[in-house]
Amino acid sequence: MSVRDATPPHVGTLTAGPRNAITDVAGVSVGHATLADGSVQTGVTVVRPHAGDLYRDRVPAAASVINGFGKSIGLVQVEELGVIETPIALTNTFSVAAVAEAQIRQTIAANPQCGRRLPTVNPLVFECNDGYLNDIQAMAVGDLHYRGACAAAGPDVAEGAVGAGRGMASFGVKGGIGTASRRAEVANGRVFTVGALVLANFGRAAQLILAGRAIGPVLAERLAATREDAAGGEGEAQEKGSIILLIATDAPLDTRQLRRLSLRSAAGLARTGSVFGHGSGDIALAFSTAYTLPQEAARPMPAIAMLNDALIDPLFQAVADSTEQAIIHALWRAETVTGRDGHRRQALLEVMPDLPSLLSERTP
Amino acid sequence: MSVRDATPPHVGTLTAGPRNAITDVAGVSVGHATLADGSVQTGVTVVRPHAGDLYRDRVPAAASVINGFGKSIGLVQVEELGVIETPIALTNTFSVAAVAEAQIRQTIAANPQCGRRLPTVNPLVFECNDGYLNDIQAMAVGDLHYRGACAAAGPDVAEGAVGAGRGMASFGVKGGIGTASRRAEVANGRVFTVGALVLANFGRAAQLILAGRAIGPVLAERLAATREDAAGGEGEAQEKGSIILLIATDAPLDTRQLRRLSLRSAAGLARTGSVFGHGSGDIALAFSTAYTLPQEAARPMPAIAMLNDALIDPLFQAVADSTEQAIIHALWRAETVTGRDGHRRQALLEVMPDLPSLLSERTP
Amino acid sequence: MSVRDATPPHVGTLTAGPRNAITDVAGVSVGHATLADGSVQTGVTVVRPHAGDLYRDRVPAAASVINGFGKSIGLVQVEELGVIETPIALTNTFSVAAVAEAQIRQTIAANPQCGRRLPTVNPLVFECNDGYLNDIQAMAVGDLHYRGACAAAGPDVAEGAVGAGRGMASFGVKGGIGTASRRAEVANGRVFTVGALVLANFGRAAQLILAGRAIGPVLAERLAATREDAAGGEGEAQEKGSIILLIATDAPLDTRQLRRLSLRSAAGLARTGSVFGHGSGDIALAFSTAYTLPQEAARPMPAIAMLNDALIDPLFQAVADSTEQAIIHALWRAETVTGRDGHRRQALLEVMPDLPSLLSERTP
Amino acid sequence: MSVRDATPPHVGTLTAGPRNAITDVAGVSVGHATLADGSVQTGVTVVRPHAGDLYRDRVPAAASVINGFGKSIGLVQVEELGVIETPIALTNTFSVAAVAEAQIRQTIAANPQCGRRLPTVNPLVFECNDGYLNDIQAMAVGDLHYRGACAAAGPDVAEGAVGAGRGMASFGVKGGIGTASRRAEVANGRVFTVGALVLANFGRAAQLILAGRAIGPVLAERLAATREDAAGGEGEAQEKGSIILLIATDAPLDTRQLRRLSLRSAAGLARTGSVFGHGSGDIALAFSTAYTLPQEAARPMPAIAMLNDALIDPLFQAVADSTEQAIIHALWRAETVTGRDGHRRQALLEVMPDLPSLLSERTP
Repeated sequence: MSVRDATPPHVGTLTAGPRNAITDVAGVSVGHATLADGSVQTGVTVVRPHAGDLYRDRVPAAASVINGFGKSIGLVQVEELGVIETPIALTNTFSVAAVAEAQIRQTIAANPQCGRRLPTVNPLVFECNDGYLNDIQAMAVGDLHYRGACAAAGPDVAEGAVGAGRGMASFGVKGGIGTASRRAEVANGRVFTVGALVLANFGRAAQLILAGRAIGPVLAERLAATREDAAGGEGEAQEKGSIILLIATDAPLDTRQLRRLSLRSAAGLARTGSVFGHGSGDIALAFSTAYTLPQEAARPMPAIAMLNDALIDPLFQAVADSTEQAIIHALWRAETVTGRDGHRRQALLEVMPDLPSLLSERTP
Repeated sequence: MSVRDATPPHVGTLTAGPRNAITDVAGVSVGHATLADGSVQTGVTVVRPHAGDLYRDRVPAAASVINGFGKSIGLVQVEELGVIETPIALTNTFSVAAVAEAQIRQTIAANPQCGRRLPTVNPLVFECNDGYLNDIQAMAVGDLHYRGACAAAGPDVAEGAVGAGRGMASFGVKGGIGTASRRAEVANGRVFTVGALVLANFGRAAQLILAGRAIGPVLAERLAATREDAAGGEGEAQEKGSIILLIATDAPLDTRQLRRLSLRSAAGLARTGSVFGHGSGDIALAFSTAYTLPQEAARPMPAIAMLNDALIDPLFQAVADSTEQAIIHALWRAETVTGRDGHRRQALLEVMPDLPSLLSERTP
Repeated sequence: MSVRDATPPHVGTLTAGPRNAITDVAGVSVGHATLADGSVQTGVTVVRPHAGDLYRDRVPAAASVINGFGKSIGLVQVEELGVIETPIALTNTFSVAAVAEAQIRQTIAANPQCGRRLPTVNPLVFECNDGYLNDIQAMAVGDLHYRGACAAAGPDVAEGAVGAGRGMASFGVKGGIGTASRRAEVANGRVFTVGALVLANFGRAAQLILAGRAIGPVLAERLAATREDAAGGEGEAQEKGSIILLIATDAPLDTRQLRRLSLRSAAGLARTGSVFGHGSGDIALAFSTAYTLPQEAARPMPAIAMLNDALIDPLFQAVADSTEQAIIHALWRAETVTGRDGHRRQALLEVMPDLPSLLSERTP
Repeated sequence: MSVRDATPPHVGTLTAGPRNAITDVAGVSVGHATLADGSVQTGVTVVRPHAGDLYRDRVPAAASVINGFGKSIGLVQVEELGVIETPIALTNTFSVAAVAEAQIRQTIAANPQCGRRLPTVNPLVFECNDGYLNDIQAMAVGDLHYRGACAAAGPDVAEGAVGAGRGMASFGVKGGIGTASRRAEVANGRVFTVGALVLANFGRAAQLILAGRAIGPVLAERLAATREDAAGGEGEAQEKGSIILLIATDAPLDTRQLRRLSLRSAAGLARTGSVFGHGSGDIALAFSTAYTLPQEAARPMPAIAMLNDALIDPLFQAVADSTEQAIIHALWRAETVTGRDGHRRQALLEVMPDLPSLLSERTP
């Protein structure tokens, strides 16, 4: 059994869903398109809140900008109208425009009057900067990759160095895509699912806290000892990372409540050692699958009894825990990647093969 | 003398600058690229806060989202960091991505380490939907047009159906680009300049108040009588407009104060009859040319004595007045345009040639 | 017939409700307690969203801070939880604390476990500075007055120099309480009522636009000629005013939508000449009476089909129009008041008895 | 040596200032007034940014509302104007009004024209609910206590069950006031001090992470075994807590940057186990002592070179670390308190006397 087969630690006391993935929220699917060829190490990941046409049947959503050093597109309208009307896309910083354009073309293809008799569509693309491993100036991601990621979307979620996560790094090691879920029982006995999916590209090695263990200093030491570019160099400069935090739930929440949920992902993020660094665009978005909202005014609006805020704490806990868990998964499952100019980010478990045994030691 | 040569009314009691344009703020320049060919009636307009490299020497800025039904790119980072690092671009809704990509390429060309050793750049593109006159699905705007608008930037500002304003309409008549300026004397005798530039694509005819005169009902009547598509049709549907409101000043203000300024453009907007309609993406951004902020931490930061907020009221008045004036200019100077599927928006003075004489009547 | 009996002009094309008051929204009541004795010219006004216990049956609400130079209490929690749990109170700046304490005592009296087994209550008090006419340092408002205003609450709303409006001034003349309503028909034929109530204490004389007529310069001239303190003095200094704008509706809206509504009051405010002056705390709050939200988690949440945002424009127009109308009412109906140190603010119609005839002239 | 004399663990790698208190930021002082008599277990704490008159010489400040279930007063104006103009006061939820009134009286006493020729003053009071230990309905705090706390302000800061912290509890044990500081060296060699002071009244026992050790489950078990009210009861119900997080620094920052700092206290808070619970009003405020801003427009504004944001990360780390440390101090130093109806909250070290030795074990 390789070290990679070791089971990552489970954080918190809540139970995970069957897949321990955002797709445990019924209807949600995830797809990747990965570009991995020499100096091009990048991709697109899409999260689809439901299988239908989001432009016609929108889902409620809200965002929290934890640190706005980021180039996402679409948040202004999400804030005003409280809905998502495309699949959520993740990619590298310089490919936001190409993916947004792909989302527009996708919507027009399905709705030929979009931008004419019907309103324009609001693209929704988040990004991190993978410029250390990936030749970001090549702007290699295009319409084809976005459509590929959409077509590949399903309930099984590959993690680590895939899709938008291909070129991302966290805490000095390989990062990327991670996902997790938690089941939250609210006081009146109802059980809801909360799922998180992250694009992890943040953190300096010395900061890392993994499942409550401050392994950062050890990690930093190991990296310093093993790293080819030990003299420092571009990869060692100030954090230029970011993390995108997507939260899904089947609980019936309105946009005010979803904004509250989205912010709780910051608690999970902080527990991994992040202080929401200046250069890290840390943006969270939460959506609910409990109901959809018709674009056309002629169609009836759903009558939904929202959750009383007094019952919301288990969901908050589930957001924080599933976020922290998703970040652990991104680190645990990402493989070593070598990219532009021979730059290389090692897998965490390659740098610290003793991590599983270290974590199994008694705690607190 | 044609009616078009009539001087538009001057709103308020403050004096305009020599050009009555945003370029009265020293250093600011404006350029257009206009696409006017059959069903393609669109373009790009750029506002450059200064002639240098904005990526290296950034200007302080802040925005107010009056109504966030809009697809702008770049505001998340402006909110967090309080700076602009590209020229400000205006275009149609579906061309935001292409123009953002052009801004990235422009920055890389001048700064080859952008996205590598240096941070990525934050594109800043605002939009309105010109889909009634323009075949917006054609996505005709590209890198070339953005670069053309930048190259054309200078102190003289063409208004009306030019640049991003080519296909825009307001109050049922032709809208587009308008600009104006006001000089504001603060209590301690210092005089500052405030300039506004708008991309006007908002408002239903019946709402129009022009220089304090509620001419909307008359305008609506005239339009109903003359319009070819009098039966209604696509152009008559719900407001799908938007207005972008850019404010420049040479007053030394920080980002908190610039945010305050940007919101006062909503007062000028409201005085033209707008109630910030649901479908209208009304977004304001204000920047100061009083100082620049170096991207590189190694370069010294400027030591600026900001304006005491207790002195700011004349600037607020200047923002409201120059915004209202800029909207009047956009309406007054836009020529009739015929575009996609024979759709047509007439010039205001063509629909109401008696407007100058009507306005010259005694008031109040 | 005195000039005061003249009917104020009706702004806009929407119809007013039977009372042309915020109480046209079914269930809403308004009460005043007025203190008018020598140098004490102040009071309290309460707006009750419904006749029941708001702590137990809360109403959805949201606010827009147009200019936050103000000392209101309660908005932090309204923003987070989206509900009102006391009557809304208006008073002078230095009496906010006393009224907030009165709200707490009122809630405890009705709910003895408040702050113990039950949560604490969130006082909600807005203010303007009436320090020119009123000896604000006397802090004359107390528990008794708040309870008096609550007890007096009913469907008929006195306007002008009453309640919290007793000592307020606007545009150099007497201001205070004003209210109005509009009926809004949305596209699917449903009709909703929107009501506004303002506490008007803002604006310099020269800025005033009344029902679309820029009468400010004339008003300023008249005031300069007639004013005892013509040499200037304290009353002529920088705007230290404020306006509180309360919006009620029976439309089924969530807090995101109510925030949108609240902001549209800024459009009505701007049409009277305001540029949201630095020293003016301009704060708007909107609530819906369409449903209530139980404090206790054990009670069921209502299942409400909210209004589709695509239908919301008539409500926006109704907010802007009823706000502008309420400001006109405040000015039109306020009587002359003499207070502290002989300071005096004249009624608008006393300064401009020719105003009704002036307004009846043809316009635009 | 008693267990209380044990040194609390030091979190992070940054060095504390000489007092390990917010008063390590030069000029800052802290004072308490404590009410501890039977069922009255409450108080007031003040933090003074400088020794002068804050109304005349204001300090720049900004806040982050992490969870707005709170009744603070003053944040609307801090957000708009970016300054503090009174000492910052902390107290219990139902005493906010009394303390705000005391701040107004204090300002008037020093500035007799306040509210007349001079602007009104903006009280700034934060609160937590100490209703389990304290008879909060007694509203026992008054003007005298606020003035007492101001008079007592100095560089030495008592921690735990003092001042506003007298009746507060966290994680099922006694909480209250805690403070700490960190020195942050930015890339260009300049060293700044960051100080935190918290009023800790949040968290359920099972959540507690102390200095990276998840001792919550053990703590919860011990509490369950020892607690008199083991059957549950009022104290065990849903979190009704809150935490107020005050951050001071001598770094030259503007309000945008101070807002960024304030949010990083949420990272320190999350590392103690908080997920920003629904019922917890978690509010952070940061201020700088590097310069003051004159109220009067006639006095000159300071010309300050702000810190380049690219250098800000060490300050972010210092905020997170000093916040976490201050929370540890609040728990470590609070003594057992018995109050209303015999309710009792034990000192952490009384419940877990083995905590120091447990923490000294090797980690990670």
